[in-house]
Amino acid sequence: MTAIDLNSDLGESFGTWQLGDDPAMLDIVSSANVACGFHAGDTLTLQRTCAQAAERGVVVGAQVGYRDLAGFGRRFIDMAPDELTADVLYQLGALEAMCRVAGTRVAYVKPHGALYNTVVHHEAQAAAVVAAVVAYDAGLPVLGLPGSAFLRQATEAGLATVGEAFADRGYTPEGTLVSRREPGALLTDPQVVAARMVRLVTEGRITAVDGTDVVVRAASLCTHGDSPGAVAMARAVRDALTSADIRIEPFAGRG
Amino acid sequence: MTAIDLNSDLGESFGTWQLGDDPAMLDIVSSANVACGFHAGDTLTLQRTCAQAAERGVVVGAQVGYRDLAGFGRRFIDMAPDELTADVLYQLGALEAMCRVAGTRVAYVKPHGALYNTVVHHEAQAAAVVAAVVAYDAGLPVLGLPGSAFLRQATEAGLATVGEAFADRGYTPEGTLVSRREPGALLTDPQVVAARMVRLVTEGRITAVDGTDVVVRAASLCTHGDSPGAVAMARAVRDALTSADIRIEPFAGRG
Amino acid sequence: MTAIDLNSDLGESFGTWQLGDDPAMLDIVSSANVACGFHAGDTLTLQRTCAQAAERGVVVGAQVGYRDLAGFGRRFIDMAPDELTADVLYQLGALEAMCRVAGTRVAYVKPHGALYNTVVHHEAQAAAVVAAVVAYDAGLPVLGLPGSAFLRQATEAGLATVGEAFADRGYTPEGTLVSRREPGALLTDPQVVAARMVRLVTEGRITAVDGTDVVVRAASLCTHGDSPGAVAMARAVRDALTSADIRIEPFAGRG
Amino acid sequence: MTAIDLNSDLGESFGTWQLGDDPAMLDIVSSANVACGFHAGDTLTLQRTCAQAAERGVVVGAQVGYRDLAGFGRRFIDMAPDELTADVLYQLGALEAMCRVAGTRVAYVKPHGALYNTVVHHEAQAAAVVAAVVAYDAGLPVLGLPGSAFLRQATEAGLATVGEAFADRGYTPEGTLVSRREPGALLTDPQVVAARMVRLVTEGRITAVDGTDVVVRAASLCTHGDSPGAVAMARAVRDALTSADIRIEPFAGRG
Repeated sequence: MTAIDLNSDLGESFGTWQLGDDPAMLDIVSSANVACGFHAGDTLTLQRTCAQAAERGVVVGAQVGYRDLAGFGRRFIDMAPDELTADVLYQLGALEAMCRVAGTRVAYVKPHGALYNTVVHHEAQAAAVVAAVVAYDAGLPVLGLPGSAFLRQATEAGLATVGEAFADRGYTPEGTLVSRREPGALLTDPQVVAARMVRLVTEGRITAVDGTDVVVRAASLCTHGDSPGAVAMARAVRDALTSADIRIEPFAGRG
Repeated sequence: MTAIDLNSDLGESFGTWQLGDDPAMLDIVSSANVACGFHAGDTLTLQRTCAQAAERGVVVGAQVGYRDLAGFGRRFIDMAPDELTADVLYQLGALEAMCRVAGTRVAYVKPHGALYNTVVHHEAQAAAVVAAVVAYDAGLPVLGLPGSAFLRQATEAGLATVGEAFADRGYTPEGTLVSRREPGALLTDPQVVAARMVRLVTEGRITAVDGTDVVVRAASLCTHGDSPGAVAMARAVRDALTSADIRIEPFAGRG
Repeated sequence: MTAIDLNSDLGESFGTWQLGDDPAMLDIVSSANVACGFHAGDTLTLQRTCAQAAERGVVVGAQVGYRDLAGFGRRFIDMAPDELTADVLYQLGALEAMCRVAGTRVAYVKPHGALYNTVVHHEAQAAAVVAAVVAYDAGLPVLGLPGSAFLRQATEAGLATVGEAFADRGYTPEGTLVSRREPGALLTDPQVVAARMVRLVTEGRITAVDGTDVVVRAASLCTHGDSPGAVAMARAVRDALTSADIRIEPFAGRG
Repeated sequence: MTAIDLNSDLGESFGTWQLGDDPAMLDIVSSANVACGFHAGDTLTLQRTCAQAAERGVVVGAQVGYRDLAGFGRRFIDMAPDELTADVLYQLGALEAMCRVAGTRVAYVKPHGALYNTVVHHEAQAAAVVAAVVAYDAGLPVLGLPGSAFLRQATEAGLATVGEAFADRGYTPEGTLVSRREPGALLTDPQVVAARMVRLVTEGRITAVDGTDVVVRAASLCTHGDSPGAVAMARAVRDALTSADIRIEPFAGRG
């Protein structure tokens, strides 16, 4: 029986400002990319999200980001590598404390937002994130974009790496994501998305934006948690996968 | 042979803004109260300070504070207990990561600034800090003011507690600190301060502001690190203690 | 024909986090208490909210608060008066710039959240806010709680003052607000609230929580913008007032 | 009699963290680039610096920067133009309030740190800063690097522009600054620097790093305020200029 991981970004509320429906998503996914307070996530939200994840057996990963609440971590910051390494370490430890009191632990690392996109190609920042993970716990896997500098460098540094596919994004014939500025970038029909994900898991293929088939290898599927209809789409993906006898299970060890 | 701990607040620079001479103080003290980023301490400073402490065998404590960079954690914030607990947990974990990569660990907890003063009497906030330490690691001792609600509650919760005396502060005949608004609050002569500390350690007594003797029990002496002459005073205290055959050693286990 | 002002807290989104339905509320109220970035309000939100207010002829007031995004300005901070004065000045100027480019100006000042509640009784902080307004523009009216230290000091300092009533709050027989910890603190039926406000404007009376009548003098009615049903309730209040031939108009001069 | 402006970055302390000797520099320069709270400058420091400048007849400019205290505004942030415009407006207004209560006004705008360097070549961000100044007050001159996209766009938008030279920096034969990574980037001898500045003002020329002469046109000379020896160097430059019968006077109108 085939298995796949479902991941989603969670813990992204901040104080009075709520974002997404974390409890609902935690009933669907197997891995929770929990914010670490730099791009989002007040400390009480982080503590509660880790506790809710642990209660449901959902594995917690640290979603580390740029220190930029106003920009939600979506703006590249040209940080020096040693500063970025220190920022990642700080966030890892902070979330670890929340996991510890919830009886679980940080089980993997996934960069957020602009940092995620930057380490696809920015070798120095990718190296800085990898250095933080290696120094903190060389047994932690990292989750990122297949083919990225980040996953390549992580592999070279001896880390386990996990590539992910995006459930609601269109793919080019080359297997990269269609730019958000172009048509076909975002898929909104839950049934279409669900069927694509079943095919991706069972056949390793997906229909690209031009109608051709493209090979996509991913051990985790990312479903977004903060857009309208997010929960419904994630639920549709999960249901379609389980109906196809695909188990939903985390790629990383449970706490 | 008698022994005593010397502690000081360190790691309080922030980005381009430098504060104190951490390397010099780390050659003097046995315990470093390292800031955790909320009242002071950029992440790289925290990482470096923990590394420098570990290199010298200085024990690291987490100096947790209010999230208030503009006020340096010196302004009371009327936080709800669950928010304060979460803030303390976050800071503990963040500093733990810096300790971990330096080959050491957070060995105790000391509140900073307004939080330090608040938990002397504010039962709810004292309970919130104690709850965080108990949840995080009930084996961690806490450092605070003798007679405070904080140390009392910590004891009741099963934590080890350590009371401290302040090297450069005047004491009332009742054994409390002379208010900073009154004469005799601050002592500036290194030799006078050093002699007082030797007497405190050997006799358990100190001369109060009115000339009478007062009993002060303390297992740690706090020397401030960020005032002019701070290093010279701390050095004088250390030299006087060792000349009196008093060993300087941390109260908490080394990493 | 009688007239009354309707005010509401607006501009309280922050980056990706949305709060309230500002355009809808701006179609209802005559005065917008716009956040100034310290407790809420990213800069682009502030700019847009001021522009939207100006387009509709809604008067803009500066809703100054504690610098505490994580706490949404709802936690008392024990600031020194000179620091608080400087924080208020900074916020006033920042919002003024947003008004200026929108073709309007800051027309009054209203403290937010914990600062609002604090200056009801805290003389030093009340004085600090008053000092900021006097220094900035002694022609600016201030909006606050009738009977508060803030409005008394403002009057003594020569500022125009405006007392407000809260549409959705219960009142004690003494004319103060029922504590949120007690029954009857919050009113949720739009029609009940609307009828109360009409009576308050026409008769200067309101039914207290114990069923007796109480005199409440207010030149402005505060309707909350960020709770579920907020827009509907504010709309009901406005419609009832205008049906009763009461004009809705700002107490402060239009830009 | 020739005249030149001397400018320096001031108001860059933050809370407990002090930076530079603002009163000393204010006795030397004619224009103060005062921080606006985003990269540096707590509100009380800003208020006091503006007051001290006004007392001495020193003109105040708004030194707007990225919102990045941890990085002191020295890290490029890939902000969207509308967000950057709003950030600049917010800072302009905030500093204006401090000027207003000091009896002066913001008389010019100078970007800080990474924003200064970015708008040399980044057309979109340069346009965003120019748009903010135009919207706020099209009569405000801007201060920047000669030949930059920023000054070119500002000119095209109808703003008055002022180019500056850096007193303590080496120049290439092309008239650009020697990179800080190369030898000759920084000059440390006050007498050498002073003589260069006199020649620059009187002859419009300076000796480049290769010994050749290079033409540099500048209506303002920037002297740094936060490095060791900064005050002495600024003083030497001022003394040499006045000894050469060059008046030190602001390029922008006094408040």
